[in-house]
This record gives sequence, structure tokens and C-alpha cells, in this order.
Amino acid sequence: MRIYVDAFGGDNAPLAAIQGAADAVKAYGHTVVLCGDEQAIRDCAAANGVAMDGIEICHTTDVLTMDDEPKSILKEHKNSSMGVGLQAVAAGEGDAFVTAGSSGAVLMGATFIVKRIQGVSRPAFASVLPSGTKPFLLLDMGANAECRPEMLLQFAQMGALYMSKVIKQSEDVTVGLLNNGVEEHKGGDLQQQAYKLLSESDLHFIGNVEARAVPYGAADVVVADGFSGNVLLKTMEGTADMLLKNIKSIFHTNLLTILGGALVKPYLGSLKKKMSASAHGGAPVLGVRKTVIKAHGNANRVAFMNAIRVAAEAAQADIPTRIAEAMATKAEDVG
Amino acid sequence: MRIYVDAFGGDNAPLAAIQGAADAVKAYGHTVVLCGDEQAIRDCAAANGVAMDGIEICHTTDVLTMDDEPKSILKEHKNSSMGVGLQAVAAGEGDAFVTAGSSGAVLMGATFIVKRIQGVSRPAFASVLPSGTKPFLLLDMGANAECRPEMLLQFAQMGALYMSKVIKQSEDVTVGLLNNGVEEHKGGDLQQQAYKLLSESDLHFIGNVEARAVPYGAADVVVADGFSGNVLLKTMEGTADMLLKNIKSIFHTNLLTILGGALVKPYLGSLKKKMSASAHGGAPVLGVRKTVIKAHGNANRVAFMNAIRVAAEAAQADIPTRIAEAMATKAEDVG
Repeated sequence: MRIYVDAFGGDNAPLAAIQGAADAVKAYGHTVVLCGDEQAIRDCAAANGVAMDGIEICHTTDVLTMDDEPKSILKEHKNSSMGVGLQAVAAGEGDAFVTAGSSGAVLMGATFIVKRIQGVSRPAFASVLPSGTKPFLLLDMGANAECRPEMLLQFAQMGALYMSKVIKQSEDVTVGLLNNGVEEHKGGDLQQQAYKLLSESDLHFIGNVEARAVPYGAADVVVADGFSGNVLLKTMEGTADMLLKNIKSIFHTNLLTILGGALVKPYLGSLKKKMSASAHGGAPVLGVRKTVIKAHGNANRVAFMNAIRVAAEAAQADIPTRIAEAMATKAEDVG
Repeated sequence: MRIYVDAFGGDNAPLAAIQGAADAVKAYGHTVVLCGDEQAIRDCAAANGVAMDGIEICHTTDVLTMDDEPKSILKEHKNSSMGVGLQAVAAGEGDAFVTAGSSGAVLMGATFIVKRIQGVSRPAFASVLPSGTKPFLLLDMGANAECRPEMLLQFAQMGALYMSKVIKQSEDVTVGLLNNGVEEHKGGDLQQQAYKLLSESDLHFIGNVEARAVPYGAADVVVADGFSGNVLLKTMEGTADMLLKNIKSIFHTNLLTILGGALVKPYLGSLKKKMSASAHGGAPVLGVRKTVIKAHGNANRVAFMNAIRVAAEAAQADIPTRIAEAMATKAEDVG
């Protein structure tokens, strides 16, 4: 697999991307093409002792920053490190694209440079999140603040494919609809109509799930409009962060708690790791013609390596083609 | 103050309500009227050694259960323990009403028995939640799945009054709008229009707040439509529950972690207590003519005592009249 990676996206650019690329080349044998200023990349790699074997560079000096308008990816910044990577993948020069840059820009670029799959109303951002038991997929988590019921059905179809082929590696994927109660009549018009569409689909729809049950792994795929999906995602992050910080400060209360903390620290570390999204490789934009993965803005070396691994797996499983087939079948059903 | 309490609402009925009532009478000197089957209440009190001094009973044998339709509070179950309490308070026989029963029914009853304040579009459920720093008020947390921008403005006005007079005891109350980003243009139509209305109001509006910042106490009052407010509330609960359970199980890994756990246990207990909503007395229904407080379904003795305390404080501060005044001023502004 040939994976294009934006070397200048995210808080830890370009070092984390370079290190993650080198690790991914070594671990999985993929070719990684780093997009960005060639000299800066080579200097950074040399200064940090990162071997560039198996890594190519797609040179460009422009960078799209977090302050730039998302739509600038189509104009002023079409030749940014994000822009050239998206164009290369759209043109078939690579199998997948990874960036830790602006969410708005990558969504805009995925939609209008890589382009939507025919039949998909709106591409969605899907995030693989940790639960108390197993990871689950949440979508949409912010691309579409306002949704129609048919969009939620498509999100469920795309999410189930991704979960089945890339994350869970199993045909049995449960789908739940985020709602303010488990009863069928709950929610507003959007949820009630989406419930009906999901019930009639061939998905393994388990009904409404309440937000309280989501962190326990209530469903493999949780479907929501982008606004409430975003609220769910960020509330999980914020609550977990805040609690773990409070617990950390408890360990610094006195000598006995410092000792107590030292005794449980290794186990807390693995819990923190389990709660971290970075192991699952970031958020795919589903519904576009090539695999596009958005890594977290603060992605580190490990997160980049995982994002590249997952991007290659999604490309290998040919998720875009499978989604296109599912949409075509759907269109036939209707027509 | 004379507080009516539904003795037959919630998972721990009637014992928790009776104990909480007795504790509140003792601690604050209020009169508590327990609604429900007199014989059952007296038997339960006697069996558990609870003194009934200062407690009256409003006798009725009917109970509205979680399986009953919310609207049955107006018909089949209008003489349930919840129904008679709401009627008594509506008729001016009491200052406030507390129940741990069905949320849907108490909202329905508050709206149509106690009745809306003139000028209020829709009453809202407001919840006082713990943050890493200080408690904050979230509304709406589920009464209105679909909202108009004007409703969000009213929620903010009502919530700011409650926060100022009952919880924070300060005139300086910050208001934030739950959104999927902090920038002014974020969210859908609802959020964008609500942002404008809040900016033009005389509230201390601090702009959009992301869900990630809410558990850190980003604003004293967080305003949201009932659907995403419900998602936020339940995600906080679910994430905190799941994490604390995981941490508890870490302490049982081996002998060293058991020792570690024992050393930090008292401090973790106080964190758990801080994270528990019960200290803040439950969720007021704001926008109706009398104080109505919904305690958590699993409210225990302490939660009931706190709910009675807060109900009395809200009645003392005459929140309904203040809300009526605010709505009247608003109507004059418009007219």
C-alpha cells in the first residue's frame, strides 16, 4: 500500500508524522509519501535520527493552518501539504491519505477533491472510540450538524462496513441510534424517522441507545446527527480527562497516597491507554472515493503510525468500493 | 416552608423519601407533607425507626409507575401520590413539590397542573451537575427534544435566575451555549440564531462552549436543546461511572494494588461524592408557577433531604415569581 501523509498537519508537525511514517514503514512494509517542504522534512528527520528508508516526499511549501478557512483547501491552499496529498490520492497515485490537520479542511477536501461516492448524500466523520469493553464507531461526529433521516441510514450503512472490515473483523456488527431514551417513540422527528428506516434495513439494528450506555459499548456502531455526535464525543473526552486529572491529583495528597499511587500506576496507565483514541487510528471520512483518515490534532508518533496502519487496512479492504456497491444496491431497491 | 414530597416515586420508595423528609425536618425546620398511602408510610417509618415529627401525610393509594404513560398524570393517575402533591402545590397549599418518579409525568404534571408561567414557551428540565471545579446548571436536559432559538434564550434567562438565587448565591452568573465549536458561526440554524439572541440579551453570555470544556466548569449555566442536553448529561454520567468502575477493578488486581487502593480510598470516595449529582438536590422544572423538583430515580435518603432543602430554597427565593417578572419585562421590550 502507498499511503500519503500530511507532514504539516497537527500540533506535533512535522516530527510526529515523520516518526510515525518511519515506524509504519518498518512495521508494515507500506510505502509512505510525506507531503510538505522536502528540506524541512529531511532536516527534521536528520536532527532526530529518523531513517527515511521507504519514505518518499511530495514537495510543497504551503501549509493550511487551523486559522485558515476550511474552503481555502480548494483555492488559496490547494497546494498545501494537505491539498497535494488529497489531489494525489484522488488521482490514483496513492491508496489512502492521512492528516492531523484542520477537520473542516480535510472534510471539505475529501468531499470536493477526492469526491463523494455516487448516491452518498453527505460524507461523514466517523470516530473509533474506546469503551469499557471494546472499541465502537461513532458517526457522524461533527461533519453534518443538521441531518435528514436518510443520512442517518447511510451513516449506519457506511459505519457498519467500516467496523466490520477494518476494526471488528466480523460480519456481526450491531448498530444503535443515539436517542434520549430506549423506547421506539423517543427523540424528535429525525430520530423517529431514522428509527423506522433503520428497522427496515438489513443492518443488525438494536434500536435506540442512550448516551449513558455508549461508554459501556452498547453498540458497535452508534449513529447520530453530527451535532449530538460531536457532543457525545467531546463529553466523553472531557469527562475522562477531568476525572483522570482529579485522580492524579489525589495521588499527590500526602505520602500515603503517593505510595498508593505508585502501587497502582502501571495499571492506571493501561486504563488511560485503553481510553485513548489514538490506538484505533483516527477518524475516517466515510462516503468519499478513497480512504481519508483524520488523526487527532495532538497525534503523536504512535498515533500517526496507527493512523497509517488503519488507512492501509481500510484501503486494502476497499471500503470506498464496498460503500459504492451498497449505495448502488440501495438505489436499485428504490428504483 | 411547607414542602410536598411524593413518597412513592423512585427506586427506593417509600423509605428513602420518609428518611429524607425526617432528616430535612430536623435539619432545616421545614414542614414536609408526604403524599401516598398513609398506612404504608406509617408502617415503613415504624419498621425503620423513623420519627414522624413535623411530617404530615396527604393520603392517597394510587401510584403512577415508570410503566405508565406520562399523560396519565392528568387522567387515570391524577390522584396518584405525584398527582395529589402537584395539585396541592398548584392550589397554594404548599410551597414546593419534590418527586423521584417518572420524569415525563412530572414534566407533564408541572406543565398542566401547576401550569406554565405566562410568556414561557416551554418549561425546561434543569440539572445541577458537578464539574471539576464548581457545580453548573445544564438546561434543557430532556424536556424538549426540539427547540426554537427563542426557547434557548428563555432557558438561559430562567437558568441564570435559578443559578444566581439558589445555587451560586451570586449575581455574576456566566451563560454558555453548547455548540460544536467556540466560533460564532458554529452549529446549525438553532445555535446560530440562539447565539445572536443571547448576545443581545442582558445575560452574562460568554459565547459557545464545547462539550469537552463543560465537565471543567466552562460556564455556570450551559444552554442546549433538550436532545443534546440529554446526550451531554448522560454521557457525563456514563463515562464517569464506567471509569470509576474500571479504577475500582484495578484496585483488585493483586495484593499491591489492594494496598494502593486502601491508601487512596478515602480521597476517591470524596471525588465520587463530588461527581454525584445528589448533593445539589435534583432537577428543577423551570417555567412553571411553583417550585417543582425532580430527584434522581435512584435518590437515597441524603438525595431526598437535599432535594427538599433545595426545593425550600427555590421557593424562598420565589424563583417562579422572578421568572414571571423577567418574562413580563421581556414582553414589554418586544411590545
